[in-house]
Amino acid sequence: MRGMQETIPPPNPARFASLRPVWWHTDPDGHDSLQMIDQTRLPGEVVTMQCDTVDAVWHAIKRLSVRGAPAIGVTAAYGIVVALDAARRDVRNATAASDSPASSDAAADWRAIVAAAADHLATSRPTAVNLFWALDRMRRRAAALGEVAFDAARRALLDEAHSIRDEDAAMCRAIGDNGHHLIPEGAGVLTHCNAGALATAEYGTALALMYAAHARGRRFSVFVDETRPLLQGSRLTAWELRRAGIDATLICDNMAATVMRSDRVQLVVTGADRIAANGDTANKIGTYGVAVLARAHDIPFYVAAPSSTFDLSLTDGMGIPIEERDNDEVRGFGEAVTAPKEMPCFNPAFDVTPAQLITGIITEKGIISPVTSERIREMVGE
Amino acid sequence: MRGMQETIPPPNPARFASLRPVWWHTDPDGHDSLQMIDQTRLPGEVVTMQCDTVDAVWHAIKRLSVRGAPAIGVTAAYGIVVALDAARRDVRNATAASDSPASSDAAADWRAIVAAAADHLATSRPTAVNLFWALDRMRRRAAALGEVAFDAARRALLDEAHSIRDEDAAMCRAIGDNGHHLIPEGAGVLTHCNAGALATAEYGTALALMYAAHARGRRFSVFVDETRPLLQGSRLTAWELRRAGIDATLICDNMAATVMRSDRVQLVVTGADRIAANGDTANKIGTYGVAVLARAHDIPFYVAAPSSTFDLSLTDGMGIPIEERDNDEVRGFGEAVTAPKEMPCFNPAFDVTPAQLITGIITEKGIISPVTSERIREMVGE
Repeated sequence: MRGMQETIPPPNPARFASLRPVWWHTDPDGHDSLQMIDQTRLPGEVVTMQCDTVDAVWHAIKRLSVRGAPAIGVTAAYGIVVALDAARRDVRNATAASDSPASSDAAADWRAIVAAAADHLATSRPTAVNLFWALDRMRRRAAALGEVAFDAARRALLDEAHSIRDEDAAMCRAIGDNGHHLIPEGAGVLTHCNAGALATAEYGTALALMYAAHARGRRFSVFVDETRPLLQGSRLTAWELRRAGIDATLICDNMAATVMRSDRVQLVVTGADRIAANGDTANKIGTYGVAVLARAHDIPFYVAAPSSTFDLSLTDGMGIPIEERDNDEVRGFGEAVTAPKEMPCFNPAFDVTPAQLITGIITEKGIISPVTSERIREMVGE
Repeated sequence: MRGMQETIPPPNPARFASLRPVWWHTDPDGHDSLQMIDQTRLPGEVVTMQCDTVDAVWHAIKRLSVRGAPAIGVTAAYGIVVALDAARRDVRNATAASDSPASSDAAADWRAIVAAAADHLATSRPTAVNLFWALDRMRRRAAALGEVAFDAARRALLDEAHSIRDEDAAMCRAIGDNGHHLIPEGAGVLTHCNAGALATAEYGTALALMYAAHARGRRFSVFVDETRPLLQGSRLTAWELRRAGIDATLICDNMAATVMRSDRVQLVVTGADRIAANGDTANKIGTYGVAVLARAHDIPFYVAAPSSTFDLSLTDGMGIPIEERDNDEVRGFGEAVTAPKEMPCFNPAFDVTPAQLITGIITEKGIISPVTSERIREMVGE
């Protein structure tokens, strides 16, 4: 893993302000590598990180250098190719060191390399659904390849990883295209946590609406909840919007009510971690409170999420398990400790917003509104 | 100003768990001094600070070593006596240094000392109403003294400062006595910011209810909002409740909605900075949001405040000016910087909760409920 400061992610010709948190880099000599923005260093520094081994990819996911379910999925998919490249490099180095004849046989068992890498990467974030999904897709692609040589397998698997990335980017972009009209000219939009490009292959979900509206020349301003305890709003969303030139104002979570009351917000839009068959939506802790406040102030509350976020096996939000995280997150931030050492805390990572508080759910297929089991089945059911 | 770690404030025989943030200390040799808990060091360290000069008192108020309107008032009142003692000490030192005959004349103009100290202390926190009120009361007491010698004047002014402290403590205690029954056995209570003993002479306002209920053996638990950006909840309220042996759980502000929804809160009670004639209440930023959430979850929302908090010259909350504070408070967390450097922020220090969201206001005179202009006039009008 190498750190290179201020390397700018590759540009994208789209009319959207574009940001990719993870990308496959080919240098002028034809050497490939997996690179990403180290999100743990944001917003203080923009550091590009290169992962040359499966273990480096595993750690990047584990330590949240890359986060957000779709972005993790993309990273893991590329991680399989990283494993193949590392194995080939090892073989070459071994060949150069010993004087034995070049052996391409040692890397020939690409199936074993893929299987081991997928098993290893799957342990990096045990609850990340997109991680397992992306790895399974890579495994299935490998299984379908039949008797091909190392290079052909690598090429096919790299193509598959590119497809996973491209499909996610296209899905996010479609969410933006479907939902941007919900941001009126001159409006204020409030968002919570980071449902931005940094969490996906590109564009984001909630933030895709903003990028799409901005690309169309619409003027609006965004209120960014800082999103305690991990401050994804101040660390990531604030940085991302500012980078894109979108007018944004950072607030503490407890200021959202006052901003709403002062008529400065005409739309609330957040992402989602999981949506039940009836529309109940699990998302970052604090989302439910924002939805209650939006309702009290007659402000439309939208969720933006790809159809893959729906879990139709769950009747409602009661079935969504809520992870409780370490108390130290609440007792301080980073190095700063701000509460008595042994202070008991409550630290749920997510909350569930009931469907009746959600004005609509913006997916890549269209907008579900009103949010009812029927409409959801029509839009995203098999 | 001297720092002495872990000195325990003097005990109080009341049945309440007692905590005084500021006290007048007389050592075994008969030397008097003004001491206080340095609240900037909480919750990491309990440091007792001694202020031997008016300037030390001024700085203690300025840098928030003591905060909370009533506690500031008590501190400023004692600050007048500190000024007299410092002047006498200076005279003694000068006399000892020179060989001139002991001159008690130099300290004899106690009126000039009192006037200068009051003027200086009034500049420490320009918007603290209790500060001006306490200093005016000390000035009036001085004016009423007539032709008395230095020692008699000092004695009378120290008594006046003691009275200011005792009256505030009695008022807070009466608030606790009037309101503790609102906490049912086994209940959960949610509070925001620090309306505790640390903000008053003793007992606090919102927290007085808890101390009173706890002293009566009632079992309940408290959810403490951390209260961004300055974290008075995690730094002060959490520490204070834990010290008193009251069951308390720290949460991030954005978790309040989830806690309420899970039926773990039966009462919300906060303090107030200023209450208009119709009951609209200015308090720490975030209070309004908590009130909206409480209403949405059918949880009674009470404000606890002495009658001096009412400003009957204001028809409603529209007239209450809201201070906006430095953006760096929102862009960081203690020493940690967590947002892009130039990120625009919105950082109002207070918000206004409309009377119709307030179930009742608990004062030292009784509970105002429902909260209407008439009831308020009856209870606290002249």
